[in-house]
Amino acid sequence: MAEASTVRPLRADKVTSWDHRADVVVAGYGIAGVCAAIEAARADADVLILERTGGWGGAAAISGGFIYLGGGTPLQQALGFADTPENMETFLLAALGPGVDKTKIADYCRGSVEHYNWLVACGVPFRAAFWGEPGWEPPHDEGLMYSGGENAAPFNTIATPAPRGHVPQLADKRIGQKSGGYMLMKPLADTAAELGVRVKYDMRIGRLIVDEDDRVVGVLARRYGKPVAVRAERGVVLATGSFAYHKGMVEKYAPRLLGRPAAAIEEHDGIGIRMAQSLGAELAHMDATEVAFFGDPQVLVRGILVNGRGQRYIPEDTYPGRIGQATLIQQDNQAYLVIDEAANEAALTTETSTPFFRRPPTWVAETAAELEAEMGLPDQALQTTVSSYNLHAAAGEDPLLGKKPEWVRPLSGPLAAFDMRGLTAGFTLGGLCTDLDSRVLHVTGAPIAGLFAAGRCTSGLCASGYVSGASLGDGSFYGRRAGIAAAKN
Amino acid sequence: MAEASTVRPLRADKVTSWDHRADVVVAGYGIAGVCAAIEAARADADVLILERTGGWGGAAAISGGFIYLGGGTPLQQALGFADTPENMETFLLAALGPGVDKTKIADYCRGSVEHYNWLVACGVPFRAAFWGEPGWEPPHDEGLMYSGGENAAPFNTIATPAPRGHVPQLADKRIGQKSGGYMLMKPLADTAAELGVRVKYDMRIGRLIVDEDDRVVGVLARRYGKPVAVRAERGVVLATGSFAYHKGMVEKYAPRLLGRPAAAIEEHDGIGIRMAQSLGAELAHMDATEVAFFGDPQVLVRGILVNGRGQRYIPEDTYPGRIGQATLIQQDNQAYLVIDEAANEAALTTETSTPFFRRPPTWVAETAAELEAEMGLPDQALQTTVSSYNLHAAAGEDPLLGKKPEWVRPLSGPLAAFDMRGLTAGFTLGGLCTDLDSRVLHVTGAPIAGLFAAGRCTSGLCASGYVSGASLGDGSFYGRRAGIAAAKN
Repeated sequence: MAEASTVRPLRADKVTSWDHRADVVVAGYGIAGVCAAIEAARADADVLILERTGGWGGAAAISGGFIYLGGGTPLQQALGFADTPENMETFLLAALGPGVDKTKIADYCRGSVEHYNWLVACGVPFRAAFWGEPGWEPPHDEGLMYSGGENAAPFNTIATPAPRGHVPQLADKRIGQKSGGYMLMKPLADTAAELGVRVKYDMRIGRLIVDEDDRVVGVLARRYGKPVAVRAERGVVLATGSFAYHKGMVEKYAPRLLGRPAAAIEEHDGIGIRMAQSLGAELAHMDATEVAFFGDPQVLVRGILVNGRGQRYIPEDTYPGRIGQATLIQQDNQAYLVIDEAANEAALTTETSTPFFRRPPTWVAETAAELEAEMGLPDQALQTTVSSYNLHAAAGEDPLLGKKPEWVRPLSGPLAAFDMRGLTAGFTLGGLCTDLDSRVLHVTGAPIAGLFAAGRCTSGLCASGYVSGASLGDGSFYGRRAGIAAAKN
Repeated sequence: MAEASTVRPLRADKVTSWDHRADVVVAGYGIAGVCAAIEAARADADVLILERTGGWGGAAAISGGFIYLGGGTPLQQALGFADTPENMETFLLAALGPGVDKTKIADYCRGSVEHYNWLVACGVPFRAAFWGEPGWEPPHDEGLMYSGGENAAPFNTIATPAPRGHVPQLADKRIGQKSGGYMLMKPLADTAAELGVRVKYDMRIGRLIVDEDDRVVGVLARRYGKPVAVRAERGVVLATGSFAYHKGMVEKYAPRLLGRPAAAIEEHDGIGIRMAQSLGAELAHMDATEVAFFGDPQVLVRGILVNGRGQRYIPEDTYPGRIGQATLIQQDNQAYLVIDEAANEAALTTETSTPFFRRPPTWVAETAAELEAEMGLPDQALQTTVSSYNLHAAAGEDPLLGKKPEWVRPLSGPLAAFDMRGLTAGFTLGGLCTDLDSRVLHVTGAPIAGLFAAGRCTSGLCASGYVSGASLGDGSFYGRRAGIAAAKN
């Protein structure tokens, strides 16, 4: 049997015997893989999933479970939020960065309501409750939340704000228990099983197998070190996740994320990307990253966030992932949160306060001038920021950044500052270029025959921006497309 | 003859007849190509250059001619500047961004003096004169200049400042005349000709030709529409330049540069990158870009540069290309230059003033408050910036950003502001991954047999930062390596 420790494609005529056969072979049993498998099975394909670990779930099952959906989903409607595909599209074009795949965003927005209904029909539960407080996730089992800064500046003036972070219901959410992502994956994995989708666990894929015309006809994997050749009669779907844990790739493509991977799993080593690159696949937006920011949004909105020069740079009440990106990429990972005693107390004692990220302030002082000196910031750097902020806050305004009036209040009395330098981490968003049928594109622009991909091994909706739910969103949406297209192939 | 309109590799057994043969075939007659050709010819290889246009030169010949060299070159020594390879390395590691190829930077710094001597031996003239004024290029025929912010904050505290921008002498420099880049290319092209290097012009390369083991054995090109097969007995060197003019690639990899290519030529369409990608070549730092900023450095240093929030963000006396990158990438292309009448007058009338980028101010006002209102900035945004700056400037200090005392003076009297929004443009820095012998690396990390590359179709010294002279620098340095390695192959 051929050597399995390279990602170079293997010619089918070198395969002496096939260990497994299926119409559609799906690599990776996370969100993209399960959706591909379901749709392929429903299209009467015999489906085999190859999963590297010992169980289904991938990064999805341990995630918060956000799926970014809109355009007027039944959940949005039930909760009284008006939205249209066009409004959603306007927001995403503004929020997801220059160079987005406009065709994909338009397609995704137009298919979003149908996709919501499909998930519900697969058994994914969404409770009709809205969580409107600052936070990363709903603290209970609420099904809808703002997850991209839709209701914050500047987007609240660009498109009509609508929450689109859809979260599967978790009846008994406690720290350390199952997550919203588990509640997304479980019914989908059950659906796949009911449809007769077969799964082989502990299979590490390594090479695509191609015929003499470079058409993909299978995958070479290893199981407990032994090569396993898997024939795919109709197509192979790559759903192997990001490259957040491949140090060499992160160094070459997204070096600001070096040493700070998060919300990914160690299996996210870019293997699917590299296997397809070996066949001449095109890439896109390899530098793009989701960036979490380890601050409590309840504290953030009540304070002012300043960079290494003591200057404010982003409305503190926007999506915290947007704060993470701005901090890591535009402020060289330098950030401090400044707040007064009363506001900090309010953040910690509010009924809707969450326990995440709580810690004591790094510096406290009686005045902004003293705080500035304590923090080692240049003379006047923080003082002028605080006095400008306070001047307008007295009138409930924030002309500099447009923080919403409800969170704007002058800082007074003793002040505290939290050192937020380096408190970012995230996962990669770049990957293979695919078309609307999730066909993997060659650098020529033509599809690579027999090869499909979805999820974080592809470049999906995001060019450089991010919204929570974009990954489970495009992973599930284009996972389905991959399954449909592969089954038809 | 095989179809030439795809970048997919062509099997050699499909080639019915070879139109040309050489030991080493070099694609592209710019700086990397000419250096590869010279070294290959000196290693007794029969060398053929395929150039797409009707003449030699590439982007190099129309550039300013900066070559970034140091570590104690004879020119540095003659002008009294101490430098060592280690000092140069310390600076470049700090200035060229996270994720740099450290091995390549160490190698380049250690080989820099030898490379300078090699260029001089090829006939490239450098005049022992230093230009120490703010500017993009020396206005006369001076041979040495700071070209990366070595003597500005924060680098002047990280490494010992030494100018490393080496510029070939141009005896009669006038606007519209030949450039420093021409004076670099001309003696090199003459050297190549003397060595018997052959050149075919009007040859558009399109596909690599590979044997049954995927070893590169030639190139398929088109000449006046007709396919031309060129056999390379020892190796092919790709030296085809950046992808600044391939809209699809810029959209996918460096979308902030969309619509603003500069200091590149239209032939920079990424063809070499795409041809090698088709063979499974690895890429790196595809989002990195050089960014020019269309402001007169003489005016810049005397004013304060603020972003869309009226905040200073970079020392105004640093390398202007660094200002360009910070503005485009970290400040969303929002910048204003604020200066007082006296300083603006001084900038325009100084003996060393250059005529570049002169234009009238966009706004003028008697006070910072009035100017702020005229500019449409939020109340206090600019006023606090000016008053903080003035407070420290009165003592000749800039604690916020460390602008050098010689340029720090309080702004007083009538003020002017220049609208610098969107005034950036540049070229791409990302490309093929190569090793120290300029062998093109496959995604497996192994070299692709028979394939070499140098110049802006490769990822060279820069990960995300830039210094003027890095492109002609790594292009010429690793162009030589490519020629040596290909000839030996």
